[in-house]
Amino acid sequence: MVEPDQFGLLSKINLPQDLRELKITDLKEVCRELREFIIDELSENPGHFASSLGVVELTVALHYVFNTPFDRIVWDVGHQAYAHKILTGRKEKFHTNRKFGGLSGFPSPSESEYDSFTAGHASNSISAALGMAMANSIKGDGTDRQVVAVIGDAAISGGLAFEGLNNASSHPNNLLIILNDNNMAIDKNVGGLNQYLVNITTSKQYNKFRYELYQTFKKANLISEEMKGAILRFNNSLKSLITRQHNIFEGLDIRYFGPVDGHDVESLVRIIDQIKDMDGPKLLHICTKKGKGFAPAEEHATIWHAPGKFNKETGERIKNNNADSPALFQEVFGKTLVELADNNEKIVGITPAMPTGCSMTYMMEKYPTRSFDVGIAEEHAVTFSGGLAAEGMIPFCNVYSSFIQRAYDQIIHDVAIQKLPVVFCLDRAGIVGEDGATHHGVFDIAYFRAIPGAIVSAPINEHWLRNLMYTAQKKADAPFMIRYPRGKGYLKDWKCEFAEVEIGKGYCLKEGTDVAILSFGAIGNEAFKAIEMAEQKGLSIAHYDMVFAKPLDEELLHSVMSKFDKIITIEDGVLKGGFGSAVIEFMVDNGYSCKVRRLGLPDNFVEHGTVEQLRKACGIDSDAVYESLIKEW
Amino acid sequence: MVEPDQFGLLSKINLPQDLRELKITDLKEVCRELREFIIDELSENPGHFASSLGVVELTVALHYVFNTPFDRIVWDVGHQAYAHKILTGRKEKFHTNRKFGGLSGFPSPSESEYDSFTAGHASNSISAALGMAMANSIKGDGTDRQVVAVIGDAAISGGLAFEGLNNASSHPNNLLIILNDNNMAIDKNVGGLNQYLVNITTSKQYNKFRYELYQTFKKANLISEEMKGAILRFNNSLKSLITRQHNIFEGLDIRYFGPVDGHDVESLVRIIDQIKDMDGPKLLHICTKKGKGFAPAEEHATIWHAPGKFNKETGERIKNNNADSPALFQEVFGKTLVELADNNEKIVGITPAMPTGCSMTYMMEKYPTRSFDVGIAEEHAVTFSGGLAAEGMIPFCNVYSSFIQRAYDQIIHDVAIQKLPVVFCLDRAGIVGEDGATHHGVFDIAYFRAIPGAIVSAPINEHWLRNLMYTAQKKADAPFMIRYPRGKGYLKDWKCEFAEVEIGKGYCLKEGTDVAILSFGAIGNEAFKAIEMAEQKGLSIAHYDMVFAKPLDEELLHSVMSKFDKIITIEDGVLKGGFGSAVIEFMVDNGYSCKVRRLGLPDNFVEHGTVEQLRKACGIDSDAVYESLIKEW
Repeated sequence: MVEPDQFGLLSKINLPQDLRELKITDLKEVCRELREFIIDELSENPGHFASSLGVVELTVALHYVFNTPFDRIVWDVGHQAYAHKILTGRKEKFHTNRKFGGLSGFPSPSESEYDSFTAGHASNSISAALGMAMANSIKGDGTDRQVVAVIGDAAISGGLAFEGLNNASSHPNNLLIILNDNNMAIDKNVGGLNQYLVNITTSKQYNKFRYELYQTFKKANLISEEMKGAILRFNNSLKSLITRQHNIFEGLDIRYFGPVDGHDVESLVRIIDQIKDMDGPKLLHICTKKGKGFAPAEEHATIWHAPGKFNKETGERIKNNNADSPALFQEVFGKTLVELADNNEKIVGITPAMPTGCSMTYMMEKYPTRSFDVGIAEEHAVTFSGGLAAEGMIPFCNVYSSFIQRAYDQIIHDVAIQKLPVVFCLDRAGIVGEDGATHHGVFDIAYFRAIPGAIVSAPINEHWLRNLMYTAQKKADAPFMIRYPRGKGYLKDWKCEFAEVEIGKGYCLKEGTDVAILSFGAIGNEAFKAIEMAEQKGLSIAHYDMVFAKPLDEELLHSVMSKFDKIITIEDGVLKGGFGSAVIEFMVDNGYSCKVRRLGLPDNFVEHGTVEQLRKACGIDSDAVYESLIKEW
Repeated sequence: MVEPDQFGLLSKINLPQDLRELKITDLKEVCRELREFIIDELSENPGHFASSLGVVELTVALHYVFNTPFDRIVWDVGHQAYAHKILTGRKEKFHTNRKFGGLSGFPSPSESEYDSFTAGHASNSISAALGMAMANSIKGDGTDRQVVAVIGDAAISGGLAFEGLNNASSHPNNLLIILNDNNMAIDKNVGGLNQYLVNITTSKQYNKFRYELYQTFKKANLISEEMKGAILRFNNSLKSLITRQHNIFEGLDIRYFGPVDGHDVESLVRIIDQIKDMDGPKLLHICTKKGKGFAPAEEHATIWHAPGKFNKETGERIKNNNADSPALFQEVFGKTLVELADNNEKIVGITPAMPTGCSMTYMMEKYPTRSFDVGIAEEHAVTFSGGLAAEGMIPFCNVYSSFIQRAYDQIIHDVAIQKLPVVFCLDRAGIVGEDGATHHGVFDIAYFRAIPGAIVSAPINEHWLRNLMYTAQKKADAPFMIRYPRGKGYLKDWKCEFAEVEIGKGYCLKEGTDVAILSFGAIGNEAFKAIEMAEQKGLSIAHYDMVFAKPLDEELLHSVMSKFDKIITIEDGVLKGGFGSAVIEFMVDNGYSCKVRRLGLPDNFVEHGTVEQLRKACGIDSDAVYESLIKEW
């Protein structure tokens, strides 16, 4: 751990008010120290690295100019908020970042009054901040309260962000939107808007000219509040004339400023200070570099998005890869998709801004024209897949489980109603670990199960993932969901010949006579050790891998429920409406009255920690299965 | 019913190929006849009126120019598609429109090969059409297949549409987007983009100039495929210079044409024909009038969106209002909200483009600064409500049940995780009738129930709606869902003094000894007659109105399950994971083994018809309850 005392200025800053007592000329040094602090900490305690380094100056400038926490800063996707956390009373606790019981890796209103809104899923900041600004305007007691939304150039491509922008000018408010343009989401940015931002930023000379013009007017005392607006409009017209470009934001009636250098903290302070009191919604476009200040991260921002531990001197990432340990489910997905695509030219791959995370990269490399990274746009990813399927393609749409929530309506309306064969590969399903409450993919079984015709499956291991993918592309005539967890699989060798799976069929992993365990997905592995332990106590346990939560294997369930009166279900998802619920619906509908113990996630949001810690806390680990087996029925 | 024979040209058109054999100069007459046919039909057989009249010329032009069904037309929000249906083989069946077993009121791929994609929920056409265009480009066998998306100026404000636009230029395709600008959604349009479109359309003189310039070049044979692009870019730059306006679409790398008069069918044919073969995505902006050709509808487009029966000569709407019949749930919501807002200044109202339908209009009239119609933007409606709530307001966010599916992630991420007090009034919950599969609001119980901390309630009648609303604004510290059906209530006088409801408490409507009925919401009224009939057969039936599907009244359930071994649950929603599922989860978790018959919607999409027909078909009407009561247990 780093001793904060070694940082001359930072050691004196506990809260933003301490920062605001410094001279503007000190801020550059504060930024340097903050950056060093983050590098020190992150090298030992892994977290989101490159994004946080990129917004150090912006964070310092915002807390310097605004009266936080009275004024509100709404971060969009919170993994850039480390400097913010460090400056707002959480420096000493920062070593607990993302750890069980420690600080959240994202802004969290329950953690600090400086965190004004949840910031785990992208693109929500403008709408949330607009709501906050309107509330202040309605209440009338806070007319001088400022609200700032900070949004990245990737997040702004999300539909929700556009809806927010489109509404920003509808009602009187003084919202300030900071567009943090680093030309890079987790993966490289895509879309027309991105190209547009690139075009804007290349006309630096013009911008310099405009800024100087503005300064000249200001110095000459030629700028009143009203005049400001006129000059800006004039400037923007001038810009159109000179650059032949079209300003999208001005088109939406939002005043546009920029682009400016996001790493020049003094000039950021000055410009934010100048525009903050102007009436009406406004957008300041700043340009930053992901990983700024740490050369390897500047060079390879995607790798350094969340690099794990590293040597801060050499920039070497410390890998604890064991050649013998199983491959990641992600790796198996990515390579299997290419194999399938080799043999089925109808297969296309779609992912909204997560090709590296889900390993769609293999497909993109080999079949660039059959692969689509659509940017942060989950709804589009699904409806676009529906369009592809309507014309005979078989789309594999890979979205993290917690993000596919965004496209629930599109799955129903644009895929399921038409019985279109879209394969939804839901990566990071279940408890995901350190990313916490906003990122666990735990609702999918419940809400997918409600959709008529949907197929809901989960592989217990890598071979089943491969075979489910193989089956889906051969047989799909409906949305076919395959959910699998983040991280390592369970097999030494994930490669296997493809075998077709019968849809809606489970199978017996192990016979037994006293209790039947019905598991769904990879969480079924937690049962193995529990069964062993329970059998040492003299019990005889049967274990069935159901593979499908929908359609259920009714034949198997009839056989189990006729034979056993004690049943345990286990799933890596919420209990309300989930897999276990499906099992008891079947049971009651068919007049059985077995005793059923359902293991799954309780009815509260699960915080962050390691997957093991969280499974234990939620009662879905091996110990919990064992307890359920042996405690009195 | 209208005899098609009275229409000289229309009677000869059975399919678009017949239309394409006509001379371009005949098209004006076809449009007149089509319009007359629609007016005749709709005056007797109610449906969506004003939108369909507005796009008669566009529909004729599209089928005249394009080789449908080989070429694809993707309608966005299908209630404009009546002329399309009439021209594509469904003229004779058109009198069955929206009727049980008859034509769907929306385009439906299962109904006709001319309906290329589902079109019930707004804003999906660009993404779907882009998917179709890319599929054709990948397959390589359909490079000359054209794909056209038709989207209104209201639907284009939805986030999904923007995501589609933003991706349109990312891959090579020849998508044509028609922006049908009638400056009016169901209600009046809102947002910066709308203002922008108004600004564009006011510079008619420039557009005329540009179009003439283009024609001149064309006549002089100066336009090759490449030249076309150059001239267009030049023209757009010219436009910027002249009008000082910024073209959002060009900013997204989509070629922009227009605006042009959408009621001049010959000129529509010519311009579509000219631009259809140009490479790359392009957008044609046409201006139309909702209700065109029927004066009362032109004047009051909102009223004539779906006017019911009317006298086609006088324009008088035929109301079958019975002064004694109960008020609409919608009316009760709207007026109650104002009463509550009178006494609680924290209350604000939010609705995404449905203020008239849900009766938020009362609130908008009395408290314009506390009411927000955010346009077609369900996600924003929810996150914006979250922002308002974070600053201490109590937002009543009214969204039709089937549309709130769009904001599932936002409810979880931007409201529930933060325990914010947003009241979700889910109008048109359950079976909605004639709008059919895309519009039934039947998944909400299942997917809301999975959200930790959410409160899921449904009133059995108007008094309970009022009291739940009253309770929600006093007590909410979590997303509080109140779902209620479309249409008439059950009471003669809906007005009552407010009384606070205990959250998570049901109550006994009627004592009994043989069977217990547990109902959730207004569908509970179906049980009354069934109980009467069953008791005439000598059975004694108890009836409990649960009011809350979450939290469940566990005390009441313990008492019921101790006393009864026969239980019937009834809900106006899907069985999988719904209210009945919640009841049996409780039962099994607590070791009871009653026989439970769950009445609710089966696992398939429910088509259109009257609410009564559909409830009967799905087994959730009075007769079904009766059958369940008396058949052998």
